[in-house]
Amino acid sequence: MDDTLLGPVAMVGAGSMGQGWAIVFARAGAEVRLFDAAPQVLDAARPAIAARLDALAAHGLLNEPPQQVMARITSTSDLEAALAGVQHVQENVPEQLELKLELFRRLDALAPADAVLASSTSSLPASAFADTLAGRARCLVAHPANPPFLLPVVELVPAPFTAPEVVVRTRARMARAGQVPVVLRREVDGFIYNRLQGAVLREAYWLLKEGIADVAGIDAVMTAGLGLRWSVVGPFETADLNYRGGIAEHARRMGERYREMGAARGQPDVWDDALVARATAERRALLPLDQWDERVAWRDARLMAARAAGQGVPDSYNAAGDDSAEDA
Amino acid sequence: MDDTLLGPVAMVGAGSMGQGWAIVFARAGAEVRLFDAAPQVLDAARPAIAARLDALAAHGLLNEPPQQVMARITSTSDLEAALAGVQHVQENVPEQLELKLELFRRLDALAPADAVLASSTSSLPASAFADTLAGRARCLVAHPANPPFLLPVVELVPAPFTAPEVVVRTRARMARAGQVPVVLRREVDGFIYNRLQGAVLREAYWLLKEGIADVAGIDAVMTAGLGLRWSVVGPFETADLNYRGGIAEHARRMGERYREMGAARGQPDVWDDALVARATAERRALLPLDQWDERVAWRDARLMAARAAGQGVPDSYNAAGDDSAEDA
Repeated sequence: MDDTLLGPVAMVGAGSMGQGWAIVFARAGAEVRLFDAAPQVLDAARPAIAARLDALAAHGLLNEPPQQVMARITSTSDLEAALAGVQHVQENVPEQLELKLELFRRLDALAPADAVLASSTSSLPASAFADTLAGRARCLVAHPANPPFLLPVVELVPAPFTAPEVVVRTRARMARAGQVPVVLRREVDGFIYNRLQGAVLREAYWLLKEGIADVAGIDAVMTAGLGLRWSVVGPFETADLNYRGGIAEHARRMGERYREMGAARGQPDVWDDALVARATAERRALLPLDQWDERVAWRDARLMAARAAGQGVPDSYNAAGDDSAEDA
Repeated sequence: MDDTLLGPVAMVGAGSMGQGWAIVFARAGAEVRLFDAAPQVLDAARPAIAARLDALAAHGLLNEPPQQVMARITSTSDLEAALAGVQHVQENVPEQLELKLELFRRLDALAPADAVLASSTSSLPASAFADTLAGRARCLVAHPANPPFLLPVVELVPAPFTAPEVVVRTRARMARAGQVPVVLRREVDGFIYNRLQGAVLREAYWLLKEGIADVAGIDAVMTAGLGLRWSVVGPFETADLNYRGGIAEHARRMGERYREMGAARGQPDVWDDALVARATAERRALLPLDQWDERVAWRDARLMAARAAGQGVPDSYNAAGDDSAEDA
């Protein structure tokens, strides 16, 4: 662990995302400067953060009293003061290009020369708002899930002009703060998170339109099945563990069926031999086949822990199931 | 609760799926007859079930000693004996049409006239293997997730000829057994589970092919973000809780972005006003907007419980994050 990674950070924008990030960094031990131009937003932020810290403590998710974490967070409506001496700036303003263009000009002018400038945007690549800046090499997207203090993933999306060491440093800082940083190799619309989310939403809306099931039913298939498993193993590892022989065997047995389903929905993607070989090589580097049985047992133990914690039972939908039992 | 729903059940096919179902029903208190034509499969099933029952007990997921659950499960290689007096037959043989056609002929001839005949198939609609049977009205698909004793969802897929009361009865039995039954209104390729899974897998493979990230990175976005949230709230409820104003506001703000992402991947689906109105009406029936804040707090409390149980940290990928911290 490198404790220089716990230097001061600035949150620019103190709405719910800025508040969430403030919790992430302060919880990890960093000094946090919370900035917002609107005093009423800034005033509302502290009690909101305090309430969330109390809830985290109640669930055993803080290693120290909430007040101690809160004490690391200071608020200011003076941008220059917020940025003085920080190592990392996390921008969280609304998704409007003109707003980000103007703000990043000011951040680049005011922040210490070695501070990283990261945007929480889910929709604008750094290319769109940092291209003309003198300090563009220190700019990138660091897109969190919501809320970031509960969903640890953060997508790091460098622009072509982002310096590699800025990506390395930001990745290390995020990991040090307890997040799970995933570095994208290039900018792509929606990044990974919203591309996967969009794929599911489009299919879910299609199922609703076709009248296959209602909203509650489609959601229940997710929470009581797919989502529960995906909270333990991602889509590639799921495929890898579903068939003895791993993901190559999965593709051999299921590839054509998924191709047909996709083709009927406008996506005749073929998992060709080269692509499957690539996925297989990466999975085998992570999990040699002679450890496959052990990993399946690990997955099931993790699922049992999740069930024991109350996951996998969609409350309202299960109630509907009970009702129908009374009809029978 | 209706305890006639706990009458004897037969598992036809004693591989891993038959074993999983045996645990589900025996755990709920039903007498289970485990049948397989292959004696070595039948012999291997009991120790495998016993090991899983021990693991469930160790995680606090059994209400009684494992031996007591095990005592409800008997094994036989005599199909007629397995079926005598049962209320529900769950078929779990390999996904080969000829095999299912022949087996369902025998099941329909041998099982009590009022027993439901359900198939665990993930790929064959009941129309394909039960159409010509005298008792086709009692046949349907009951597709579980794997393993069914940990992932409770079960998709009930009636053929056009399936009697409505058979669907009602099966739904009630599954709910009584602790599962989460979701009834599909008609047969569709892949049902809901594998349609959603396929949508994600196609996008995940596309991201890999495009070189956006590696297998571990794509999987981490799921486990440390989307999957963790989807284990608590499904895709529609996620959208509903992401914007104050609910899913209608989500569609207004995000619909066009998801449409563009979809169009670029062959799916120019539009969430038109009628479709969004339908989703909105269903969500508002489940959650009036004046309970929205309370539900968001509920979601976050569930996410905190999941984090406290160790969810959301993909072990191998997080290790990679630590490595890069040492490089910085």
